[in-house]
Amino acid sequence: MSRFWSQLVHQLTPYVPGEQPKIADLIKLNTNESPYGPSPKVLEAIRNATNDSLRLYPDPQSLELKKALANYSDLEVENIFVGNGSDEVLALAFQAFFRQQAQPLLFPDITYSFYPVYCQLYEVEYQQIPLNAGLDIQLHDYAQPNGGIIFPNPNAPTGKALPLSDIRQLLVNNPDSVVLVDEAYVDFGTESATRLVKEFPNLLVTQTFSKSWALAGLRVGFAVGSPELIEGLNRVKDSFNSYPLDRLALAGAQAALEDLNYYRKLCQQIIDSRESLTRQLEDLGFQVLPSKANFVFVRTPDKLDAGALTAKLREKALLVRHFNKPRIDQYLRITLGTQEQNQKLVQILQNLLPA
Amino acid sequence: MSRFWSQLVHQLTPYVPGEQPKIADLIKLNTNESPYGPSPKVLEAIRNATNDSLRLYPDPQSLELKKALANYSDLEVENIFVGNGSDEVLALAFQAFFRQQAQPLLFPDITYSFYPVYCQLYEVEYQQIPLNAGLDIQLHDYAQPNGGIIFPNPNAPTGKALPLSDIRQLLVNNPDSVVLVDEAYVDFGTESATRLVKEFPNLLVTQTFSKSWALAGLRVGFAVGSPELIEGLNRVKDSFNSYPLDRLALAGAQAALEDLNYYRKLCQQIIDSRESLTRQLEDLGFQVLPSKANFVFVRTPDKLDAGALTAKLREKALLVRHFNKPRIDQYLRITLGTQEQNQKLVQILQNLLPA
Repeated sequence: MSRFWSQLVHQLTPYVPGEQPKIADLIKLNTNESPYGPSPKVLEAIRNATNDSLRLYPDPQSLELKKALANYSDLEVENIFVGNGSDEVLALAFQAFFRQQAQPLLFPDITYSFYPVYCQLYEVEYQQIPLNAGLDIQLHDYAQPNGGIIFPNPNAPTGKALPLSDIRQLLVNNPDSVVLVDEAYVDFGTESATRLVKEFPNLLVTQTFSKSWALAGLRVGFAVGSPELIEGLNRVKDSFNSYPLDRLALAGAQAALEDLNYYRKLCQQIIDSRESLTRQLEDLGFQVLPSKANFVFVRTPDKLDAGALTAKLREKALLVRHFNKPRIDQYLRITLGTQEQNQKLVQILQNLLPA
Repeated sequence: MSRFWSQLVHQLTPYVPGEQPKIADLIKLNTNESPYGPSPKVLEAIRNATNDSLRLYPDPQSLELKKALANYSDLEVENIFVGNGSDEVLALAFQAFFRQQAQPLLFPDITYSFYPVYCQLYEVEYQQIPLNAGLDIQLHDYAQPNGGIIFPNPNAPTGKALPLSDIRQLLVNNPDSVVLVDEAYVDFGTESATRLVKEFPNLLVTQTFSKSWALAGLRVGFAVGSPELIEGLNRVKDSFNSYPLDRLALAGAQAALEDLNYYRKLCQQIIDSRESLTRQLEDLGFQVLPSKANFVFVRTPDKLDAGALTAKLREKALLVRHFNKPRIDQYLRITLGTQEQNQKLVQILQNLLPA
């Protein structure tokens, strides 16, 4: 605490990301990164952009990347916003749309834990809507006056997804507030809500290059929405930081969008390994929620404490994520690794489980 | 305007950066970039970091870069904050320190035009203190109750610098509010206030890799201050975006700090060309403010309108910056280019000037 801080800063409880330790031969299944590297064409494009032009500012509008994303989303440049990772995009969206005086922002009680942090930072009133007993989002619970709605689809850390028909119904029921669908994990088997953007001016969809595009280290995220929502984001962004995306991030993300086949295969590999790991974990007595993400959320077998198991796995240089929160404190979130990493996990778990 | 926007968004007047057009053979003296490229070792370090590890998040603490900056500043890691360009660092500082209810933030009337934009975004009361007739900051004008003080040293767009003794006196006189010295242009001949950081817990100094380090395209800025100020910045940053610096930006900035000799030479070249361009412009009848930056701020000769001259230069594919604002509307801000570019400018001006 310091007398030099603004009042608000004293009250902040910052988000804590999954740890990024430097342990040799670590199997890192804790932060939902891709187990496979980005397309070789991405690496080549970045190397080609690594030249004296780094002395020059990047395009403050990121126009070429927006064009590629508009093409990818079958929409126009005016429907696209880009930022320094989808966390920045989300933060700017909270500032642009959710600082409503009259009604609270609604989001699930079990979800991405950055949402309440943004609410603190931007002084947004919010109300958390409990998932049902099966840890599902039930959208009819959101039928109440609100200053906005946000949820990930698929949800994190559960991995459970909603069908597009449910999201359409939510939008029909909420024409007067912004509905933000956070699609960080959409490419692993969920239908994107971007196809509803032309129909609903209050829909904003965010996605990221950190998961399915295997570029967490490059920091690129984007939003897709109506021109009026995109303009709201631009007004905040241009009052905050003119050039959030550097030249290399722009080059890498653009090249990724030009190699869709590489990424479709990569996502399919992860989907396949999700199915096989799910069966193996169930055989070991774990209850595995049906996941549409690049991770599985699993309840540990009875008599096996999830926190203790996380610590034991860490001793074996294998990281998973444990959330010490009501209702999910006996679950682990396990990022899908390579086949070899997943088998190593199963092997270690077999040895740790009581006979 | 949109009914979906937060109230504040309607009132924003975003910052407008200098244009980044795509004109062939353009001489771009409008955004204070380095006319020379970054160190070859920087390019090599970035290429080496362009590998499959881009699938992994960067270090959210940017610890290695902070260590290098602590060493560079002769301070500790706890004195260092890094961000996605110094604009982001400044924005977070406004949020962390300047949202004070009781008194206004003070800054010059002619200065970096992003400051009033941040004030709008974070609802910071401010008061602009006029430069004197010679366009100097007079720090005794700041002797009044305030919720913070910010100014660039050297100032932009004037290029004029204050001696460290003046800044020390300001700090002695203002022990109860944060004084932010924005040193974007410090490496071109001004003594840095970072050496006062150990003495004054209320001093924050920001610098950037965009100018003297020739890396505007990489987006890296940093702040140096007391551990309590740095912690305030970290609390806001960790409530906004866990990973503002990507892996390539980290690699490039670290490599730059390991090649100080390259950059010292580069700054000296710019200082030398500043002196010679100043003489040539004076010979043409321009009034040139004594600059300590990588640009000169020049008053056009009588009967030559600065706005019209800017437009004429643009027709010749030569960009400079004109601010259509009271007191400085007859000035041009000209970034120092290479020797060849500066000579081309002089040549074009000679032809444009009335005989």
